Amino acid sequence: MDFRTEKDTMGTVQVPATAYWGAQTQRSIENFPIAQDINRMPKEIIAAFAYLKKAAALTNRDAGVLPAEKAELIGKVCDEILAGQLADSFPLVVWQTGSGTQSNMNMNEVIAYRGHVLQGGQLADEKKALAPNDDVNKSQSSNDTFPTAMHIAAYKILQETTIPGIERLRDVLKAKSEEFMDIVKIGRTHFMDATPLTLGQEFSGYVSQLDHGLRAIRNTLAHLSELALGGTAVGTGINTPPNYSENVARYIAELTGLPFVSAENKFEALAAHDAIVEAHGALKTVAVSLMKIANDIRMLSSGPRAGIGEIHIPDNEPGSSIMPGKVNPTQAEAMTMVAAQVMGNDVAISVGGSMGHFELNVFKPMMIYNFLHSARLIGDVCQSFTDKCAVGIEPLKANIQKHVDSSLMLVTALNPHIGYYKAAEIAQTAHKNGSTLKETALQLGYVTEAEFDEWLKPEEMVGR
Amino acid sequence: MDFRTEKDTMGTVQVPATAYWGAQTQRSIENFPIAQDINRMPKEIIAAFAYLKKAAALTNRDAGVLPAEKAELIGKVCDEILAGQLADSFPLVVWQTGSGTQSNMNMNEVIAYRGHVLQGGQLADEKKALAPNDDVNKSQSSNDTFPTAMHIAAYKILQETTIPGIERLRDVLKAKSEEFMDIVKIGRTHFMDATPLTLGQEFSGYVSQLDHGLRAIRNTLAHLSELALGGTAVGTGINTPPNYSENVARYIAELTGLPFVSAENKFEALAAHDAIVEAHGALKTVAVSLMKIANDIRMLSSGPRAGIGEIHIPDNEPGSSIMPGKVNPTQAEAMTMVAAQVMGNDVAISVGGSMGHFELNVFKPMMIYNFLHSARLIGDVCQSFTDKCAVGIEPLKANIQKHVDSSLMLVTALNPHIGYYKAAEIAQTAHKNGSTLKETALQLGYVTEAEFDEWLKPEEMVGR
Amino acid sequence: MDFRTEKDTMGTVQVPATAYWGAQTQRSIENFPIAQDINRMPKEIIAAFAYLKKAAALTNRDAGVLPAEKAELIGKVCDEILAGQLADSFPLVVWQTGSGTQSNMNMNEVIAYRGHVLQGGQLADEKKALAPNDDVNKSQSSNDTFPTAMHIAAYKILQETTIPGIERLRDVLKAKSEEFMDIVKIGRTHFMDATPLTLGQEFSGYVSQLDHGLRAIRNTLAHLSELALGGTAVGTGINTPPNYSENVARYIAELTGLPFVSAENKFEALAAHDAIVEAHGALKTVAVSLMKIANDIRMLSSGPRAGIGEIHIPDNEPGSSIMPGKVNPTQAEAMTMVAAQVMGNDVAISVGGSMGHFELNVFKPMMIYNFLHSARLIGDVCQSFTDKCAVGIEPLKANIQKHVDSSLMLVTALNPHIGYYKAAEIAQTAHKNGSTLKETALQLGYVTEAEFDEWLKPEEMVGR
Amino acid sequence: MDFRTEKDTMGTVQVPATAYWGAQTQRSIENFPIAQDINRMPKEIIAAFAYLKKAAALTNRDAGVLPAEKAELIGKVCDEILAGQLADSFPLVVWQTGSGTQSNMNMNEVIAYRGHVLQGGQLADEKKALAPNDDVNKSQSSNDTFPTAMHIAAYKILQETTIPGIERLRDVLKAKSEEFMDIVKIGRTHFMDATPLTLGQEFSGYVSQLDHGLRAIRNTLAHLSELALGGTAVGTGINTPPNYSENVARYIAELTGLPFVSAENKFEALAAHDAIVEAHGALKTVAVSLMKIANDIRMLSSGPRAGIGEIHIPDNEPGSSIMPGKVNPTQAEAMTMVAAQVMGNDVAISVGGSMGHFELNVFKPMMIYNFLHSARLIGDVCQSFTDKCAVGIEPLKANIQKHVDSSLMLVTALNPHIGYYKAAEIAQTAHKNGSTLKETALQLGYVTEAEFDEWLKPEEMVGR
Repeated sequence: MDFRTEKDTMGTVQVPATAYWGAQTQRSIENFPIAQDINRMPKEIIAAFAYLKKAAALTNRDAGVLPAEKAELIGKVCDEILAGQLADSFPLVVWQTGSGTQSNMNMNEVIAYRGHVLQGGQLADEKKALAPNDDVNKSQSSNDTFPTAMHIAAYKILQETTIPGIERLRDVLKAKSEEFMDIVKIGRTHFMDATPLTLGQEFSGYVSQLDHGLRAIRNTLAHLSELALGGTAVGTGINTPPNYSENVARYIAELTGLPFVSAENKFEALAAHDAIVEAHGALKTVAVSLMKIANDIRMLSSGPRAGIGEIHIPDNEPGSSIMPGKVNPTQAEAMTMVAAQVMGNDVAISVGGSMGHFELNVFKPMMIYNFLHSARLIGDVCQSFTDKCAVGIEPLKANIQKHVDSSLMLVTALNPHIGYYKAAEIAQTAHKNGSTLKETALQLGYVTEAEFDEWLKPEEMVGR
Repeated sequence: MDFRTEKDTMGTVQVPATAYWGAQTQRSIENFPIAQDINRMPKEIIAAFAYLKKAAALTNRDAGVLPAEKAELIGKVCDEILAGQLADSFPLVVWQTGSGTQSNMNMNEVIAYRGHVLQGGQLADEKKALAPNDDVNKSQSSNDTFPTAMHIAAYKILQETTIPGIERLRDVLKAKSEEFMDIVKIGRTHFMDATPLTLGQEFSGYVSQLDHGLRAIRNTLAHLSELALGGTAVGTGINTPPNYSENVARYIAELTGLPFVSAENKFEALAAHDAIVEAHGALKTVAVSLMKIANDIRMLSSGPRAGIGEIHIPDNEPGSSIMPGKVNPTQAEAMTMVAAQVMGNDVAISVGGSMGHFELNVFKPMMIYNFLHSARLIGDVCQSFTDKCAVGIEPLKANIQKHVDSSLMLVTALNPHIGYYKAAEIAQTAHKNGSTLKETALQLGYVTEAEFDEWLKPEEMVGR
Repeated sequence: MDFRTEKDTMGTVQVPATAYWGAQTQRSIENFPIAQDINRMPKEIIAAFAYLKKAAALTNRDAGVLPAEKAELIGKVCDEILAGQLADSFPLVVWQTGSGTQSNMNMNEVIAYRGHVLQGGQLADEKKALAPNDDVNKSQSSNDTFPTAMHIAAYKILQETTIPGIERLRDVLKAKSEEFMDIVKIGRTHFMDATPLTLGQEFSGYVSQLDHGLRAIRNTLAHLSELALGGTAVGTGINTPPNYSENVARYIAELTGLPFVSAENKFEALAAHDAIVEAHGALKTVAVSLMKIANDIRMLSSGPRAGIGEIHIPDNEPGSSIMPGKVNPTQAEAMTMVAAQVMGNDVAISVGGSMGHFELNVFKPMMIYNFLHSARLIGDVCQSFTDKCAVGIEPLKANIQKHVDSSLMLVTALNPHIGYYKAAEIAQTAHKNGSTLKETALQLGYVTEAEFDEWLKPEEMVGR
Repeated sequence: MDFRTEKDTMGTVQVPATAYWGAQTQRSIENFPIAQDINRMPKEIIAAFAYLKKAAALTNRDAGVLPAEKAELIGKVCDEILAGQLADSFPLVVWQTGSGTQSNMNMNEVIAYRGHVLQGGQLADEKKALAPNDDVNKSQSSNDTFPTAMHIAAYKILQETTIPGIERLRDVLKAKSEEFMDIVKIGRTHFMDATPLTLGQEFSGYVSQLDHGLRAIRNTLAHLSELALGGTAVGTGINTPPNYSENVARYIAELTGLPFVSAENKFEALAAHDAIVEAHGALKTVAVSLMKIANDIRMLSSGPRAGIGEIHIPDNEPGSSIMPGKVNPTQAEAMTMVAAQVMGNDVAISVGGSMGHFELNVFKPMMIYNFLHSARLIGDVCQSFTDKCAVGIEPLKANIQKHVDSSLMLVTALNPHIGYYKAAEIAQTAHKNGSTLKETALQLGYVTEAEFDEWLKPEEMVGR
């Protein structure tokens, strides 16, 4: 490979001749050979940085501290990045400095050098049209840009991927709930037969979980909407022009179309990432819901002959490499694996979030990596589960009916008439003898046949 | 010990002659010899049950399904329980059935038998004035009472212990922040010297963390305010009179003075405890904040001679059994231990929350045990830390000044005037030579003395 | 209450007149009003301290730095503590200083003052027969005593409670496995019907899990056997007589009957608690196993009419306050709740363990509190589950046979004869038509009746 | 793109014309659009599968159930895969069926089709030289191959990456410990000044942590060495030739050079992944150690002027985009971020491990993904931290000396001579007056100058 010589405040470095990055990016590549093939800085962070660098350039221009042509050039490169054209220029990994300084400098270098080339310059030119620190990073520090990029990326992925995914699953389950609202089935508590409900009621619980989960996520957006930008090195805003924080937040809001504002306290915004911890707590709550829902779906569809078998889910692929004809609830499995992953990611985020010191938390890349992972996984798996499983759920009415008919817990309906103790005796006797409730009830003489038929109607035990 | 014979639907059991409980409580004592000396069902759950049993009795009376005198008798015993008079009557542990049925029955039995005694009856009487299942538990199931008790207990402890504790710490730190607002000190990022800020600004970050944490907790109260009661066995509300759910929720709200409402979906309220997961996620966010704050306080007060030593915290007790005169940041340590505990409790709650099946989650006692533990610990440790540490924090101005004066990162103020590269050269040279910034800057010829004095003023670098 | 005046290096304190503790214990009570009713320092730590204080006294006596009569007096009080006679003298909570200094001083004070009383002195005497720091704590520091007590307590509870509990469950399940070894039943993978195995084989998997878990726990005992004692303040062993570390470890080994040795590196032993983290990792592995086993048991016993119903477990108590005659797998629920708790405790321990700084980890009380909690819960719940559930497990042979007979996955036995594709066609066709494998196989013409009967024998598919 | 038509037991699928995979792989791509750009099945699993498929072919050949030429052809493709030549042929993601069936089939298809092409065939040929299920997967099931691949991949990465990385860090820290063994420095407990030790002693604690961590990892290898292969569908070994399990394990051991054996219980090996949980528990213990070590290193190197500043670490890159000349402990930050990640991964693995049901755990891909992630990160970060930081650590002797000289805790050495109380008075008075210990001790009249000089020698307080 050909190289060119780049330098920074520490000296010179050899950089691939055609790379848009400079000395500091190259140092990071060499200093952090940690999982480089699998853990690049997430693309959502690269995009978020492009928004903020453009917004900062515009704000600096407006404040008179950056020439308009430089601001325009910066914006042009940012647009290229947002269009996905420079993806190869961001090779750094998550496992770098905990402030993300190197990714901030990667961005500064690429914008400066690509901007210079767009101006007609050469990468090998000593003097460039834009300086990474003094122009592209003007009025900024890694310490306020990286957390700003974290909030932009987090808010965007929630809005664009996570929430729509959950909503779609909610909508489909809601339609199923309505469709199944009159199908009376056995209830199960402790895995044991209980009083009946309808299949639609059962599904309505899932819908309610997701509705509450969506509210939980949305409750955390206000904190995520606060941007650190303008705090610079330690939160005081050193080296920023007047009103910079508010102005740059306004530009970011405009560029992203999302309601970002300047953080009410910049010291908190640099030294803590409680907004990420809080919002991921909501994602984890949704993961907990998804685990429950997916478990129910796969247990309800279990069988086909020796399981519960009350619903049918789509057969998407052969399920076994050895057992011919086997079909498995694979979408539910992907969902429960995602749920476990999110529960793990939550701990990584909490540990990182708890360990800020003084003016800076230096677990930033690890925290946002986990956050974006969870947000993406939940969004994707909800879509996949909806499309490949939920939409095709069908009740298996014969099995459902068989289970209701045989249930001993229908006896509960007799409580108000004969009391809990006599009702228990009926159920226990029927269980012991393998007989029906009705036979047993009449035999014990606690009810007449007419009373039994009047009082014990499964379809009237579901409370609608 | 003397015993009397009690019976339930499974047969007879020997119960201590003077115990107010009956057969089912006794069975649970015998069947679950698990950590009985350390893990009794939390007292907050007992109290919550007393509220709900009284409310249920009143609602049943209003609905005409329970005689007024029985309702009154039930209420009377509940009032005794709320006054703490029957604490010994609730011996069951957390590690019982996952629905909490046995604690519900413990409550039903104690209310029934104590009520009978209040009426003038004897514990040994076969026929009692109140029946545990048919009277005290009327229109209820463990499956809806236990989750209702969980929400009552959780909401109450947040309002009465957790939130006031956090608020008190916030208020004292806020006062300190204002008091210290003009004390310029060195900033630290990555544990390394950075640009200055004021001690008050540093503390304002803590205040902001707690303010956001309080908002995070409050955001979760709406879900916690939803009560499962009225869902009975599986969420359908079998064996409840008309409008029972809304009416009983109204009574509970009235008795507790808290804004409880009937859950919008009873299937969710029995089968999932996402409200607990969600609310504990907020507690965990606060724990993460407390870890950061307590770590800062103990590091800022480190020394007295070989540490950072920028603040003094109260000397509360001798710190060492071997090192005479040693004083340690013990309140900060209690706080960080609590933070770690809450982070662990969060996982226990999430695992439990994820594993509801069909119509019921059976990790209820474990979940609420951890929730109440966290809520209590946070509230208590915030109070203790405030009273015994935060109120007495004093700046050590000589050390603070010494650190600011020697800092090389003040050079950052020169960036806008001479550029990042020349500024870096000044700092690096000063560091290498052990010289001051000013000496070095003049020596390198990048600024005049007048310029240096004009541009580099720590007190103007803190951005207010 | 009556009080007497006690003093320490910080001044005087009012102590209840009859309390055996002194100024430092009293300060801790007053300084840490945190969950005092529920989180006392575990009794296992108190006992462990009694062993080590006695061992230290004997070692000091042997080394000629403590008069024999003082050593004897110390030993006498330690024996009383081990006999459980002074339980009320240890009122401190977990949430104190992170080094456990206050509990060490509580022990020093109680031994000194109780010793004085045993000598015929009065608590109010200014001069006592033993001095807490200079006699009882001689050659010790909280920094090496507390971690020593942690290891003693941890090792003992594993040996006395946890391992016996797991072994007992393992033994009973092993007996069941052997008893059930010829009962052919349907296998289930992905909750779906699979090829058959025997019920005994299924149970043998549980036995193997517990065997591996026991090995995992035992693998961690070597690290736990290392005692910090002799490191004193920072690991250097300041103020200890020659060969103290080895000698005191030998005494502790003798007194406890456990193979304790002096830690190979005292700096590690004070500053880190990786032994606790490592050993709890093994407990967590066992918790993970228990979750699996308990889930299987409750699902296998589900029903009685609309579940899987292949085993019967003992009916221990009425399962529902509203559904008469209901019986639930309550022991399995206690076990799964314990498993979730241990998974949470693991995180608390890891967070604490990761945050030692310089010469000391100050999350000691929190770490050991969680460790002892987990060790106790696992031991107790294994015993309870074994006694109240596992011993009574019985196969429900009719259901088991019905499930095997109807299974489509028996078709797998045809793979080697007709290939996976044709076998799949048979299974899929039978499923679609609701027919049996044999009917379908013959209909499709892939096998003769003789071949089918020869090749497809469930009892020969279980591989023994 | 051009496509060809492939079919499986469910029908036909369009597959890219040049892809080596078949219908089932393609179905998985289409059915699981979940994080496909970031979460491919780890390459270590692909390699592990190549070993096992080759070993299975050889074993089948030996048993006479697979023609030698087919076995040879399978082996040839496996060798290509191990040489990294077919990386693009494995496009599936982690978030698929929880048994990893689709990745097993991906492997089966690629081997069959690539083998056919190696034989001179065309991908479009209807009849291929090898059949994915009947030849490549012979005597196997996903249910035993995937867990076997998990153990092969896990064991290999521990041996090749994780353990060497930790050992290298241990070795370098050991050399530093020896080099620094005579440098007396202040000890710190609770972040507060304590009695002295040497810098080498401090580092010896890190070495001991890593030594214990290595032992903890090695303790878990025995369980990891057990291979599920031979259990096939549910653990019974259906459709395997005699002695298959032992023979195939022997081949795998031979091919990998690692001591693999056949699992002692195949039901455990399919239904549980406790070996992964247990081994990751050891990785988490190491992560906990690394967090402690990295935190110490960065705090000891803090400053340069307002920190602790007792060691110097290499300056690898400019540390700040805004603060010129700033250098940060970036390797320590990468290490602490890794530690947090591993602590999170541990929870994901535990949750997954706890949720096996009946004959199969279906969290396999998620579990191994997290395991490999942690193993890789620990190995890589230890190497990076060693090379870029640990090797260059140098003591800053002037600072170290200054801290020792000013310490008040040297007073501890007077305890045995004048008692804890008088020693405390000296330290407290010196602290209050800002005076030295010696001045104060003489002034208080508790020692003579000669005694003071004799008793209080820092270099004799470090206990070697």
